[in-house]
This record gives sequence, C-alpha cells and structure tokens, in this order.
Amino acid sequence: MPYRRALLPCLLVFALAAACTPAPTQDKAGAPATAIPEDPGTPSPAVAEILAASPADHWRRPDPNNLLYMDFPEGRVIIEMAPAFAPAHVDNVRALAREGYFQGGAVTRVQDNYVVQWAQALDPPRPPKVGKEKLKAEFTRLRDGSVPFTVLPDPDTYAPEVGFSDGFPAARDETEMWLTHCYGTVGVGRDNDEDSGGGGELYAVIGQSPRGLDRNITVLGRVVQGMEHLAALPRGTADLGFYDDPGKYVRFSDMRVASDVPEADRTPLEILRTDSETFETLINSRRWRRDDFYHRPVGRIGLCNINIPSRSPSP
Amino acid sequence: MPYRRALLPCLLVFALAAACTPAPTQDKAGAPATAIPEDPGTPSPAVAEILAASPADHWRRPDPNNLLYMDFPEGRVIIEMAPAFAPAHVDNVRALAREGYFQGGAVTRVQDNYVVQWAQALDPPRPPKVGKEKLKAEFTRLRDGSVPFTVLPDPDTYAPEVGFSDGFPAARDETEMWLTHCYGTVGVGRDNDEDSGGGGELYAVIGQSPRGLDRNITVLGRVVQGMEHLAALPRGTADLGFYDDPGKYVRFSDMRVASDVPEADRTPLEILRTDSETFETLINSRRWRRDDFYHRPVGRIGLCNINIPSRSPSP
Repeated sequence: MPYRRALLPCLLVFALAAACTPAPTQDKAGAPATAIPEDPGTPSPAVAEILAASPADHWRRPDPNNLLYMDFPEGRVIIEMAPAFAPAHVDNVRALAREGYFQGGAVTRVQDNYVVQWAQALDPPRPPKVGKEKLKAEFTRLRDGSVPFTVLPDPDTYAPEVGFSDGFPAARDETEMWLTHCYGTVGVGRDNDEDSGGGGELYAVIGQSPRGLDRNITVLGRVVQGMEHLAALPRGTADLGFYDDPGKYVRFSDMRVASDVPEADRTPLEILRTDSETFETLINSRRWRRDDFYHRPVGRIGLCNINIPSRSPSP
Repeated sequence: MPYRRALLPCLLVFALAAACTPAPTQDKAGAPATAIPEDPGTPSPAVAEILAASPADHWRRPDPNNLLYMDFPEGRVIIEMAPAFAPAHVDNVRALAREGYFQGGAVTRVQDNYVVQWAQALDPPRPPKVGKEKLKAEFTRLRDGSVPFTVLPDPDTYAPEVGFSDGFPAARDETEMWLTHCYGTVGVGRDNDEDSGGGGELYAVIGQSPRGLDRNITVLGRVVQGMEHLAALPRGTADLGFYDDPGKYVRFSDMRVASDVPEADRTPLEILRTDSETFETLINSRRWRRDDFYHRPVGRIGLCNINIPSRSPSP
C-alpha cells in the first residue's frame, strides 16, 4: 500500500482542505449555512409524526395557473410547472392546453426504468393554432440570486451542489441552476436539435433518476400527484419503448391548466414547502433513519431519494 | 462571499490533497488502479456498436444453479443469485424452490417507486418442509480479498467506494462489502428482527434506488431479465402498497432454480462481464455521452445508472 507512506502529512493537508472548503450557503438572505447534521443517535420519528406536528405555514397551495391536470379513466395526474426555470415552455404549454391541443392525447411510449411519454395520438400531430411548435431550449437558468435554493449538503454524483428550489429538486454550479431528473420529473421531448421541443410532447421519469439528461433537455416541472397512473402502464415493445401499435396507446381525455377547470372539479392540494423546517426535519429523519426496522443509518441521503409530501386539505 | 478570501492558498492545499488521495484499486492482482477517465472529447459510440465489437470472452453464461425463473402468464422473470454475498439465503431459496414452496405464489405488494414483493399467496404461508423459515442475516460480508471488486471511481452519496462484483452492483468500506439497492435488486423480506427473513418472501426494486436499505437487509441478487413484468404491475392501495384484496394478487406458476428446469425450457442467457474492458468502455461512453442528442456530458455516472447488458445467445 504505497499510498500509506505519506499518511501523516496528508492528514494535515486534508485538515487544511476541510478548513478551506466553503460551507454551502443559501441564496436567501439570512438563511443558515448548511452542513450534514450529525447523528442524533436517537430513534427517528416517523414521517406521519413529523407531518402531523407541522405548522400550517410550512405548506403551500400551488398556484392553479402552474398546475396541469391529465385525466385518465383510472384517475388524475397532477403536474406542477416551474416557470422560474422554463418560463417560455410553461407559457407555451398553457397556450397549447387552452387551445385544446392535448384533447384526446395519449401515452405513446413507456420505456421501463426510464420514461413515460405523451403527445397527441395523431401522427403527424395537428399543428398548434395559438401555441408554438418549437421554442428555444431552456436547459438551465442563470444563478442570479433571484430564485431560492435550499442546499442539500449530501454529496451528489452529478452536480457540484444540489437542493430544492420552490418545491423542485435542483442543482447549481457557480453560474447556472437547473432542475434535475428525479422520479416524476416532467421534461419536454425534443429531436436532436436543442430548440426542437415546445411542450407538445412531454415525458415523466419512471425509474432510476436519469441524471445524465440534466442540462441536455428542458425540464418543465414534476408530477406532484398520480405517478402510479403513469408508472404502472404497460411497457412498449418497439424501439425506445414506443408502443408498436396505436391501438395500444393509453388515452387521456385532456391535459388542462387547473385554473381553467371549474373550482368544483379541482383537486385540493397542499405541498410541503421545501424551504421549511419541517422538510429539513423530515430529510434528516430519513438520512439518519434508525427505527424498529432500520438499525444501521448511513447518515447520507440522495437528492432523488427525498419524497416531497403532499396532502389534500379540506376545501 | 467570505470564503473567497483565502482562495489562492486553498487552491494549493487542494492540489496537495489531490496528490495525497490514493487512486482506488482493485482487489484482483494486477488489475489497474482506477480514476475517472478524462473527457475523450469525441462523439460517444452507441451501446449497440460497443457490444457488437465485444469479444466472446467478455460475456459469461450464469450458472443455472444460481438462476431463478418466475413464470408469469406474460413472460419469465430471471433472477441471478449472489452466493458470494448471501450464501445461506441462496442455499435456502434453492431448497424452498425444490420443495415446491413457491408453487402458486403471487405478487402481494407493489409500492410505487419502491418495491414489488412476492411470497406464497396463502396467509399465513404453509411452513417449509426442507428449507428454513428464518436465517441469520447476511447484510454484509467481510472484505477479505476473496471476492472480485471492480471499482467505479465516480462519487457516490451512500458509500465510500462502489463498483461491481461478479455482475452485481456493490459497495465496500475498509472492512466490509455489500450488494447495493439498485433498480432490479432482489432482497429478502423480513420483519423487524434482523434474523427473521429466510427467502420465502422476496422483493425487487422498481423505482429510484432505495440505498438506505443497504446493510439493513439481505440482498439475494438481481433481476437480469424480465423486469418489465414486475415494474408495470398495478400498484397496491393498502398500506405500504400491499394489495387490499387477495383477489388482486398477481399469480406466478412457480419460482424454480434454472438447473431444475429441463434444458429445452431454459432461457439462453449471456451477461456482459462487469470486469471486462467492454463494460468499462460502455460505462465511459455513458459517462461522457456526447452524440446527436446529448451535447453536454457531465463526466460522471451513478452506480445505479449503469445497465448491465444481457443477450440471448444461439443455443
């Protein structure tokens, strides 16, 4: 083991390096710097217990103008869009939804351990009247301090820093920020040309987070309710998981902006704020999970292993 | 940005630290040390192209004594067991299969983004005659140099070092090795008591890798073919994703050891060796993926993002 030769001097170097490593910080003024909390050494509270103790203002009701409803016979899929990261695409998907572009749409592709993809059931699709077919890519946005970012201090394979931005798993480097591909992330299908997607064809991640797609495709938002209606669909058998026959397409009646849906037909929904103390407590309870079943906590948690709780408030 | 103050001296410290960091090594004598290869800067070859160029001896035919077949009406699920990591459980599952313990079994639980679980369809199950109901846990094994380990140099959130051991995604620290929970990993269901599982109830991972389970449960092996028959099953609606009604159970005819199946009914199968040069080339082509679609490679890849190719050889 030749690398042991210089062990002692190296330990000193590492100690200096640790002292040089900046603690991750938040862009929000006054927010504390973040490091992985130490092992509390006590049994972890259950998620239900943590949520039951949460104050009302740790929850938010998403803006219905940012929510999409896809209605399948089995139930509703709800997507929250992220205008802070893909403003032009969010606007365009709203326009497409409002002109009825998605009526009679269908899931046309289900590739196991990858994505479910949906679009018009027609090939070629009828062109949009108001919305646009193609837009300039919105793969990343500037890190300009205008968008909140709550750091997750745990190490990540793919990005120098990860965390959450207003409810979305995200990453950043010195100059840019982007939404990450986790389970349920919704992105904009495109051809090889980076500016060939517009939102008329969307996909949701249904397996291991395909983080290599980060910064290579526009992320529109994420599924906040109803993932089970997408993830359990039969896998397509043609190339890339496309259904080999339009007869196998899985139809949805429409994809609509929630604010266009009559109040009585909306789904009451609250999502735990990702900048709340409750969320931090929840993450740490999973990071250091020690309970009747888990006896060996690892003290780390992956960005895409964190579930963001939602609930249906009484209207 | 106060941490910028000492930037230059810190850069020097980091350079020293990098020089002090040992390159990961392999346990196999003569195998090269591993570091993340540099960006080749050229278009990545396609997976099919890499595999087409692979010599025959980069593939292996798994020992049929280590393979389990679960036969559903829709097709066969094939599991490769890992006797190097869970010798007693692998022996016991073989014994259970041979005494017909799994005949008329069923998937009883499908929890979205987590696991599919199967067992006898009877509650309580009929006790085994030859096999054992419970065994001492095999969560980890000693790192004693007797088991191969091909290092993946990319950083991992959950373990100090990850890689592959004879076809299985794995991790290790200074003293122990263990199989990791990736998509398709098969583990042994248990109650709170660590020694309460025996293999009569098994699960497969169907979502984001639940790595917090590592070292908290015995891993038996992984699904090497047919994941789509498990992952697309309807999600259970009772607590933890159990089906609320035995009428919803998804039956399989039997789970058998492949070596007990007549040759004519076996599925020809070859798996790419995870210690082969072809596999290394494949990983690097995904790590630095740059092609008509991917324009911004990240230069890192996650352990559970690596698919291990298999193929059906002509018999």
